Amino acid sequence: MTLGFKTALIVGAGAGLSASLGRQLAGEGVKVALAARSTDDLAALSREIGAVTFACDASKRSDVDALFANLDKGPGAPEIVIYNPSYRTRGPVAELDPGEVEKSLMVSAFGGFLVAQQAVKRMLPKQNGCIVFTGASASVKGYAQSAPFAMGKFALRGLAQSMARELHPQGIHVAHVVIDGGIRSERRQEPIDKPASMLDPNDIAAAYLDVIRQRKSAWTHEVEVRPWVEKF
Amino acid sequence: MTLGFKTALIVGAGAGLSASLGRQLAGEGVKVALAARSTDDLAALSREIGAVTFACDASKRSDVDALFANLDKGPGAPEIVIYNPSYRTRGPVAELDPGEVEKSLMVSAFGGFLVAQQAVKRMLPKQNGCIVFTGASASVKGYAQSAPFAMGKFALRGLAQSMARELHPQGIHVAHVVIDGGIRSERRQEPIDKPASMLDPNDIAAAYLDVIRQRKSAWTHEVEVRPWVEKF
Amino acid sequence: MTLGFKTALIVGAGAGLSASLGRQLAGEGVKVALAARSTDDLAALSREIGAVTFACDASKRSDVDALFANLDKGPGAPEIVIYNPSYRTRGPVAELDPGEVEKSLMVSAFGGFLVAQQAVKRMLPKQNGCIVFTGASASVKGYAQSAPFAMGKFALRGLAQSMARELHPQGIHVAHVVIDGGIRSERRQEPIDKPASMLDPNDIAAAYLDVIRQRKSAWTHEVEVRPWVEKF
Amino acid sequence: MTLGFKTALIVGAGAGLSASLGRQLAGEGVKVALAARSTDDLAALSREIGAVTFACDASKRSDVDALFANLDKGPGAPEIVIYNPSYRTRGPVAELDPGEVEKSLMVSAFGGFLVAQQAVKRMLPKQNGCIVFTGASASVKGYAQSAPFAMGKFALRGLAQSMARELHPQGIHVAHVVIDGGIRSERRQEPIDKPASMLDPNDIAAAYLDVIRQRKSAWTHEVEVRPWVEKF
Repeated sequence: MTLGFKTALIVGAGAGLSASLGRQLAGEGVKVALAARSTDDLAALSREIGAVTFACDASKRSDVDALFANLDKGPGAPEIVIYNPSYRTRGPVAELDPGEVEKSLMVSAFGGFLVAQQAVKRMLPKQNGCIVFTGASASVKGYAQSAPFAMGKFALRGLAQSMARELHPQGIHVAHVVIDGGIRSERRQEPIDKPASMLDPNDIAAAYLDVIRQRKSAWTHEVEVRPWVEKF
Repeated sequence: MTLGFKTALIVGAGAGLSASLGRQLAGEGVKVALAARSTDDLAALSREIGAVTFACDASKRSDVDALFANLDKGPGAPEIVIYNPSYRTRGPVAELDPGEVEKSLMVSAFGGFLVAQQAVKRMLPKQNGCIVFTGASASVKGYAQSAPFAMGKFALRGLAQSMARELHPQGIHVAHVVIDGGIRSERRQEPIDKPASMLDPNDIAAAYLDVIRQRKSAWTHEVEVRPWVEKF
Repeated sequence: MTLGFKTALIVGAGAGLSASLGRQLAGEGVKVALAARSTDDLAALSREIGAVTFACDASKRSDVDALFANLDKGPGAPEIVIYNPSYRTRGPVAELDPGEVEKSLMVSAFGGFLVAQQAVKRMLPKQNGCIVFTGASASVKGYAQSAPFAMGKFALRGLAQSMARELHPQGIHVAHVVIDGGIRSERRQEPIDKPASMLDPNDIAAAYLDVIRQRKSAWTHEVEVRPWVEKF
Repeated sequence: MTLGFKTALIVGAGAGLSASLGRQLAGEGVKVALAARSTDDLAALSREIGAVTFACDASKRSDVDALFANLDKGPGAPEIVIYNPSYRTRGPVAELDPGEVEKSLMVSAFGGFLVAQQAVKRMLPKQNGCIVFTGASASVKGYAQSAPFAMGKFALRGLAQSMARELHPQGIHVAHVVIDGGIRSERRQEPIDKPASMLDPNDIAAAYLDVIRQRKSAWTHEVEVRPWVEKF
C-alpha cells in the first residue's frame, strides 16, 4: 500500500532514527527535507536520498518560521512532519541547572509546538497531512534524577494528544510514538550474544511508516515500541 | 516485508474483523485456521481463503484442549494466534444478571487465557510466535452501565500485559490492540456523508498485520486504532 | 470531621488491613459487620470492636444473597462497603492450572460485583453510600508470571470505574485504592533498619477513611498508597 | 492526627483554593507564607490567618531565589510547599500565539521546578518535608484547543513523578493532585438546583491535608478529586 503522501520534513535529523526514516520515506517515493541545528552531518545522507537540508534550531521561532518559508519557496509544504529533537540533562533535582531545565522544555516540547504549528497552517486548507512526534519511556513515566527529560517529553505528549483531538476530525493525523529502550548506533552497540536487544533504527522507522500509511478509518494516535528483552 | 509466520489461528471468527484478518493473512501465504462457537457462518470464508474451521467455545477448557489437539493432528500448531471473542451485557449495576456478568468474564478473559496457554505451550520450544488480543475502549475505561464488558476487557488486558512481560524475553510477541469505535459491517453502515467515520475491518486488520510483522528489536505491545472523527 | 455514615460491611475480613479498618471505623462510631470465608479468626476482633460476623464465600451468589439478607434482618444495610478479597496463583502462563485462574477471576472480581450489586440495591433508594474496592499494583500493571492476579485485579478496577461513572451522579461514592507494596503483618515483618518500608495496615486504613469522609463536591475515585522506599 | 509539619509555603496564592489551604493549614497550627505575583489581594487573608506574604513571579529564577532567601531570614524554610500557579491560553493550534505557549510552560511547569528545587535543597538535610503540585484534568488528558495548558500541566506531572521517585526514599513526600472540574468561587457559582456540582475549595483543601498528613509507610503520590456529577 502506498504512503499516500509525497513530501516529508524530518526535524532533528542526524544519524540513527532520522536517517532510517529518511531512507524509508525516500524509498516510498517521498521527497524528503531534513532539518537540524547543524547540517554538517547531513551531507552524505542528503546525497544518498536526494534530500534538501536546512539548518534550524527548532526551539527558536525565527528559525522555524524561516524553515517553513524556505520549504514554501522550494520543495513545498511537507505533508508528513516528524519531530525528533529533545534535550536532556540528568541529576538530582537539587543540583540541576535551571537553564538546562528550561532548555529541555524549549527543545523537547516548545520546538515541537513551533514546528507543528507551521505544519498545521499548511495542512489545514488541504485537510490532509500526518504529524508524528517522537516520544520516549520518559513520556509516560518520570524517572528519578531525570526530571528535565520527563518534563519535556510529558509536555510533548500533552501537545500531541491535544492536537490529535483537534485535528483528526479535520483530516490531519497526529501520532505519538513511545520509544522504550536504547537505540542501536555506531557508538552504542548491543552485546553480540543478545541480538536485537537494542532498538534497531530501521525497525523503529518501519513502525513510523506503518502509522503514516494508515487510512483514516483506523488511525493510531499512540503506539509504543521496545526490544523483546526490554523490561517494562 | 514478509510476515515471518506460516500458520495462524483466529478465534472468534465470523464476519467483520476476523474475515478481514483471515483474508489478509492468507494473502501473505499464511495457512489459516478459523475457530468459532458455531462454524455455520464460516463456510464461504473458509472456501475463499482455503482455511480449516473448528467449532469451539473458547471459554470451555475441554473445547480449547480439543481445538489444539485437532490443530496438532492437522495443520499444525499456529505460529500466530488472534483472540477476538467477547461477551457483553449492559445495564445499571443493580439490574445486571450475575450469570451474564460471569459469562462476560469467562468469554472475554478466561477464554483468552485458555487459548493463549495452549498456544504458548507450543510456541515456547521454538521461541517463536505472535499472540494478539483484541481490546476495546472498554479495556482502558470503564463506562457507566457497562460493567461486565469493562470487567472482561480489563482482565484480558491484564493477561496480555503479564504475558508480554513474561514471554517477550522468550521470543514470543504478545500484543493488545485497543479498538476505539464502532466497526463497519453489513448491518452497521456509516452515514454516507461521513466516510470512514466507522472502523473499516480491513483497516483494523492492516494494523494487526503491521504488529505481527514487526522484528523483535522494536515490538509493540499495545496500540490503539480509532476513526478520524471518533471522540477520545 | 465525622464520617457521615453509621454502618459498614468489610468483606474479606481477617487480620491486617481489615482489622485496622474495623477498628478505625468503630472508632468513628460506625457499627461494623465483618464477613469472611471463615469466621474462626474473627472472634477476638469482633469482641474488641463490637462487630457482628458472617461466614460468606463472596464468589458465590447464594452466600452473598444470604449475607445481605442477614444484614437486612440484623444490623441493617451497610452504608459503607469495603471489598478486600483476592485470590492469586503464580507461575509461567504455560504451567498455570486453569481452575486456579478461574478462581482468581471469581474471588478477586466476580465476588466484588456480587457484593457491590447487593450493596447498591440498598443504597440507591437513599442516594447515599460509599463502596471501596481494594486494588494492588497488579490492578494497573500486569507483572510477569502473575497473570491470574492481574486478570482479577484489572477486572475489579474495570468494575470500580464503571460503577463510579454510573453511581457518582446518584450520590453513591465508589473508590478504588491501589495498594502498592507489601503489607506489614505478624508473619511479614520489615527489616528493623528500614522503618516503614512496608505498608502499615493502620496507615492504609487511614487513607480509606480519608476517602470515605470526603464530601461530594470533591470525591476521589482512585488513589494509590505505597511505602516511601517502594520502587514504582 | 497532627500534620507533623510546622511551616508552609503556598505559591500562587489568592482567593479560592489557596485561601482554603491557608486557612486549614493555619487551623492545624502551621505558620503559613503566601507568595503570589501580586500581594495586593492577600492582605485580608494574611491578617486572618497570620501569614507573611511575598511578591514572586514563580517563573523567574531571581524571584524564586529571593523568595526563599527571604523565607530563610524570616519564618524559616517551609516544611510544606504547595505549587498552584498555571497559565493557560486556548485556541486552535494554528492560531496560538507562541509567546503565550511559552508562558504556559514557564508558569505551569518551569516555575514548579524552580520552587521545588529551592524547597528540596532545604528539606534534604532534614530528610523531611512535603511538596504538593496542583494538577488538573489537563494533566492526564490533552483536550482539543487547549494545547498550551496540556503542555504545562503534563510537564508539571512529569516533574512530580520524577521527584517522587528520587525523593520519597530520602524522606520527602511529593504528591500530585488532579483536580477534575471547575472550582466554585464568588465569580463562578454553581446552579442552585445542583448542590456541590462544582468543587468546593474547602473540600479540595481537605484532600491536600489528608495527603500531607500521611505517614510514610503509606504515601500517596497521585490522587484525583472531582464533583459527584462530573463526567470522566
